[in-house]
Amino acid sequence: MAMTRIVESVPNFSEGRDPGKIEKIVQPFRGREGVKLLDYQRDEDHNRCVVTVVGEPEPLAAAVLEAMQAALELIDLRTHSGQHPRMGAVDVVPFVPVKNVTMKEAVALARGVAETAAQKLGLPVFLYEESASAAHRRNLAEVRKGQFEGMPEKLKLPEWKPDFGPAAVHPTGGVTAVGARMPLVAYNVNLGTSDLAIADDIARKIRHLNGGLRYCKALGIELKERGIVQVSINMTDYTRTALYRAFELIRIEARRWGVPVVGSEIVGLVPMGALIDTAAYYLQLENFKTDQVLESRIYE
Amino acid sequence: MAMTRIVESVPNFSEGRDPGKIEKIVQPFRGREGVKLLDYQRDEDHNRCVVTVVGEPEPLAAAVLEAMQAALELIDLRTHSGQHPRMGAVDVVPFVPVKNVTMKEAVALARGVAETAAQKLGLPVFLYEESASAAHRRNLAEVRKGQFEGMPEKLKLPEWKPDFGPAAVHPTGGVTAVGARMPLVAYNVNLGTSDLAIADDIARKIRHLNGGLRYCKALGIELKERGIVQVSINMTDYTRTALYRAFELIRIEARRWGVPVVGSEIVGLVPMGALIDTAAYYLQLENFKTDQVLESRIYE
Repeated sequence: MAMTRIVESVPNFSEGRDPGKIEKIVQPFRGREGVKLLDYQRDEDHNRCVVTVVGEPEPLAAAVLEAMQAALELIDLRTHSGQHPRMGAVDVVPFVPVKNVTMKEAVALARGVAETAAQKLGLPVFLYEESASAAHRRNLAEVRKGQFEGMPEKLKLPEWKPDFGPAAVHPTGGVTAVGARMPLVAYNVNLGTSDLAIADDIARKIRHLNGGLRYCKALGIELKERGIVQVSINMTDYTRTALYRAFELIRIEARRWGVPVVGSEIVGLVPMGALIDTAAYYLQLENFKTDQVLESRIYE
Repeated sequence: MAMTRIVESVPNFSEGRDPGKIEKIVQPFRGREGVKLLDYQRDEDHNRCVVTVVGEPEPLAAAVLEAMQAALELIDLRTHSGQHPRMGAVDVVPFVPVKNVTMKEAVALARGVAETAAQKLGLPVFLYEESASAAHRRNLAEVRKGQFEGMPEKLKLPEWKPDFGPAAVHPTGGVTAVGARMPLVAYNVNLGTSDLAIADDIARKIRHLNGGLRYCKALGIELKERGIVQVSINMTDYTRTALYRAFELIRIEARRWGVPVVGSEIVGLVPMGALIDTAAYYLQLENFKTDQVLESRIYE
């Protein structure tokens, strides 16, 4: 596969229990020139399927639109229940610039998909994150607040008029959020204590919400089977808030409790740049360029 | 390009001044299915050209043999001079396993190229490093000792009978070393002092030769224009002697002199794994797998 420009999309569909339906939804990502399906995982408790797919911008957008149409035909949100908050059959469709694509171009791509989906599928669509048309619509959690059940009322409010499509919920498909964002890195740091209050305290100190790092969301979690706690982090822009900076800040805060950092973990995929940046920091590397990485040259 | 098995070769040719000849030598690496020319650099002082090329094993071997033939036709070592030690028109041809290729397979590939070159080109060939037929032939510096001018006498010694080809120097092409080795990482650590004796002392302590790390060669170097010194390192197997271990050992040794480590640098290409390993160490990553790197999944 010789993709010269690469965008990633991670569409979330509100179906996690029926493998037959899920296969039909991901079908448009298979065997298509310029598109590569990397992963899809269904969660029965969440009743949700998260797809990871990369591709050249145009074929990727076309494949995403086909998958959205399939999901709308197969999912009826009126009978949907699951632990994860959701507002649509196609709940959220993020586009992430990966290679030779600017954020501006990813924003335009997301906008195009949102507009076409609204026109063709009669779906109300919100633009979010980097694509958002207003500050209060950037945060997906704010957009989704009220969920499917609350959307009929929410869409009547002028500040929640959809960016595209009707100002009324799709009867079975609800509402969809489409947007461009930076790659998200799910990164957890484990502490050598069973005291959840310590993980909570550190999470508050390092996260943006409470005065910490700008592109860092965090909360304390208990790992009961290991008898330890964890600061569970979403790094929302590793190019501006580096992984190692969050890690070192946690170490500094843990010191006040006399608690050791016993390990960390990356959940799912991580861009190579996030780890190279980390290695470069600790090795104090001067003038290192990503094209010095053998693999990046081979596949260039 | 969809190469599923990848070997790297870094052939060194004894011509660094005539761009026309060099173009003819690298020609076999261009526009060939299953082969990708990554880089070639000529050095006028060394009078030497170093080529970096990757490919599927079979087409790569065929291309290397063609380039060897071209070099033998174009280079006359009897009139060659340069700063770098050399014994052949094709001085050395290493093969490095990169992806889905074992070291054993790289050794076999090198052996095949050595045998064919000897038969077709009438060239005496030594196998070295992982391909070596005896312990005293592993080290390229030992094999090359005496250089082109000393080879006629050296080849008469029973312990220096070539592995393939005649036990006599090729009149214009000399002798060639072919072998398989691990990727080499050229890694330098800069010290905040102008005292070369300190860099020399630390180099001795960390290198294999004097009791240090097994896959680490090192020496002290002066960086006159910056007024500092450097421990200049060749990491000969980063999978067993990690980069960060050499770096941290240097830091420990520098402490005894009250000298800071002011930076480090990677010269040329480095396998992604060497940097991921470093990031994983410093972040204390648990259970991280290379296929969690987005790029490795995209190009898989």
